[in-house]
Amino acid sequence: MGVSILGAGSIGLLFAAYLREIGIKVTLYTRTTQQADLLNKDGFIFRNGEKKKHFSICAAQLTLNTEINDPFVIVSVKQHQLKEIMPVIKKNCHNRCFLFIQNGMGHLPFLEKLTHCSIVLGIVEHGAMKLSGNEVNHTGYGKVKIAPFDEGIDEEKLVFIESWSQHQFPIEFQQDWYKMLANKLVVNALINPLTAIYRIKNGTLVKNGCFTKLMRQLYEETVSVLMIQNEGLWDHVVSICEKTAKNESSMLCDIKLKRRTEIDAISGYILSLAKEQKKTLPYTEFVFTSIKALEVENSEAEQPYEKL
Amino acid sequence: MGVSILGAGSIGLLFAAYLREIGIKVTLYTRTTQQADLLNKDGFIFRNGEKKKHFSICAAQLTLNTEINDPFVIVSVKQHQLKEIMPVIKKNCHNRCFLFIQNGMGHLPFLEKLTHCSIVLGIVEHGAMKLSGNEVNHTGYGKVKIAPFDEGIDEEKLVFIESWSQHQFPIEFQQDWYKMLANKLVVNALINPLTAIYRIKNGTLVKNGCFTKLMRQLYEETVSVLMIQNEGLWDHVVSICEKTAKNESSMLCDIKLKRRTEIDAISGYILSLAKEQKKTLPYTEFVFTSIKALEVENSEAEQPYEKL
Repeated sequence: MGVSILGAGSIGLLFAAYLREIGIKVTLYTRTTQQADLLNKDGFIFRNGEKKKHFSICAAQLTLNTEINDPFVIVSVKQHQLKEIMPVIKKNCHNRCFLFIQNGMGHLPFLEKLTHCSIVLGIVEHGAMKLSGNEVNHTGYGKVKIAPFDEGIDEEKLVFIESWSQHQFPIEFQQDWYKMLANKLVVNALINPLTAIYRIKNGTLVKNGCFTKLMRQLYEETVSVLMIQNEGLWDHVVSICEKTAKNESSMLCDIKLKRRTEIDAISGYILSLAKEQKKTLPYTEFVFTSIKALEVENSEAEQPYEKL
Repeated sequence: MGVSILGAGSIGLLFAAYLREIGIKVTLYTRTTQQADLLNKDGFIFRNGEKKKHFSICAAQLTLNTEINDPFVIVSVKQHQLKEIMPVIKKNCHNRCFLFIQNGMGHLPFLEKLTHCSIVLGIVEHGAMKLSGNEVNHTGYGKVKIAPFDEGIDEEKLVFIESWSQHQFPIEFQQDWYKMLANKLVVNALINPLTAIYRIKNGTLVKNGCFTKLMRQLYEETVSVLMIQNEGLWDHVVSICEKTAKNESSMLCDIKLKRRTEIDAISGYILSLAKEQKKTLPYTEFVFTSIKALEVENSEAEQPYEKL
């Protein structure tokens, strides 16, 4: 069975590499024709520590007329790009199985509009860096966790996704998608904006008690609106800061590279829940407005998908 | 009449220059013997735009045994250094007139302990940069505003202080010291921490609407606990950001130079008032904790006054 991947950023390319590694045919849909041409002509390079591998791949630009052939589709665009590519997904949804791996939970309302297809949600704990249009580096090892979004999803589909699991790319099945996404959202809502505002590495959040205090306040606000069991969750966040102490968060990278961040999908989503619940979350509002301000300072508009 | 100046930082040196300019004898008390020796030996250099002037001056290290001879004393140490030098002030307070020009309002409880002396409060709107132990540059022009702290202060004393007024160093008399300090505190509580956190120039706070939004929230919190009339005060803050658009705030300079900031005297004082009033000020707490965190990152302890 072939797999189509929508979005050829670092995580899209990482999936492509590990799927090609076990011989799965992959079609990679890109934003620009240039990137598709480059991938078709030169293939792509996968770096993993000191190892370097070269894979051939079939690539195409994603357009409104795209017809997806594969029964499995990984949607690896950023959440704020989802709205743009949704018409293509809708047109191609019949009988397909989609794996959505966006950060945050802002994409959930979109998914409810998809019918006659199977939906699986995933979270990606890997670090990957796109070095160019056809080169990616696997910089941090974690898991891909997946959970069915639909009740009564065909067991066979989950088995196929789990078959992608490899030593350095483990795939773990979870029962409860809400808990899975919410836990990841808490991690993102704490680590990402704070590291981006102060331009610090993840570990500094737990080494410097004043930063930990700010993080704890964000934590209290976040779990209050997500209404999740929080036993162990704070310790989980702290352990992630410790394990990735020397890493820069994706939001810090986005700010440094003057790219649009995922703040809307993360803190923005939490604020929208708070509004529904008539709660005010001043710390979350503070970091949300701060990141928006830094985006305005960077003020480099991201290129939209060309032909959509 | 001679004037003693306690504290030979940028503002202490600026006062020394303008007092010497009109022929007043000045004794400058320094933290280190080195700075006093340098000033006594080489005098000091005052830069003002392209002008450069050389003044002789009498300097001495401030110690617990210091006996002040002049009837007028300008106290120009930072607020967090005041506690340290208070014993010397107390010992020397009899029949003297003190001009305190600290930021914030945290020094007020100290002043209530001084008896048998006259107290005048001042705020300094100038920008000055200490280039070395005996060189200062007048980088921004404003006013020195003064107001008597004691009721029934000898009019003659105020007249003497007002006589220091010069074209580029105007001194303006105010009736209400509380309003004067509170207005300055609002300005400091908004501009200083925000510019230091994001490492931006003052003007960015009003050019970037997201930063303005954060500043407005801090404003609402600050005026709520200071209980001051706020007609025109917000516009005053905005106009200061505009007038000093290309300047870096003193707190941003302190953070960049890894010095201790005045956050305790500014936001810390506002939080202490809020606590008394049983109010919570989440935005002020956020910026207070942020600056504390940045100080911890810098973690370079400031040298105390040597012999006190």
